[in-house]
Amino acid sequence: MFDRVDHVGIAVRDLDAAIAFYESAFGVKLEHRETVEGQGVEEAMFRVGESWIQLLRPLGPDTPVGKYIEKRGEGVHHVGYGVSDLKTTLEHLKAEGLQLIDAEPRPGSRGTMVAFVHPKSVAGVLVELVQE
Amino acid sequence: MFDRVDHVGIAVRDLDAAIAFYESAFGVKLEHRETVEGQGVEEAMFRVGESWIQLLRPLGPDTPVGKYIEKRGEGVHHVGYGVSDLKTTLEHLKAEGLQLIDAEPRPGSRGTMVAFVHPKSVAGVLVELVQE
Repeated sequence: MFDRVDHVGIAVRDLDAAIAFYESAFGVKLEHRETVEGQGVEEAMFRVGESWIQLLRPLGPDTPVGKYIEKRGEGVHHVGYGVSDLKTTLEHLKAEGLQLIDAEPRPGSRGTMVAFVHPKSVAGVLVELVQE
Repeated sequence: MFDRVDHVGIAVRDLDAAIAFYESAFGVKLEHRETVEGQGVEEAMFRVGESWIQLLRPLGPDTPVGKYIEKRGEGVHHVGYGVSDLKTTLEHLKAEGLQLIDAEPRPGSRGTMVAFVHPKSVAGVLVELVQE
């Protein structure tokens, strides 16, 4: 059902500094930068093989990523998995008893459709499902 | 320099339950299970595209993953990136001023060579470098 690790979402305080660090230290190139108001983040995407590293800067302290950093500090915020049929996947996860944050697909960045699954249902991991 | 997301390492308390959950909910198949005494874990690997989901059960409370769960609960413990030349990568990261947990490559699971980079150097993310 999961086709690939679409991205690793990483919460950072200073996006420009983090971009410069990832480019210099890890030799990855910034390919996309976008503010996603609906999720309260500015994100920067680096392609790594078939996946992305996604750096997330909160737009404010009351956003989900802002609260995450306040509570836990910078670090991995969520894992995004690529699926081919998001709607069917969500129906399956609901039938399996998982707690969905998004019962229906909604627009993500880069023109994707996405949905989040609650970390309480996935042993502490906030999971995002991504359909290109 | 980074070729792919090799794996997402996830700390869990009950490995059998987590394996059953990942298989049933996410439709991924267990491909490898191994106890790595040197790292104090039993791990279970699911292939997802070119990456792995790696579930980690600590062998005891005084292991790195055991301490992680005690402090932060279950969740994403580290991110593994695939590199083609681990030794050269480590020299580059050292020159860039990163704090290496392993200055030299050491054996990982599945016959790989690995090295960890300290999360203080990577904005809170424990990074593992993996050479097949």
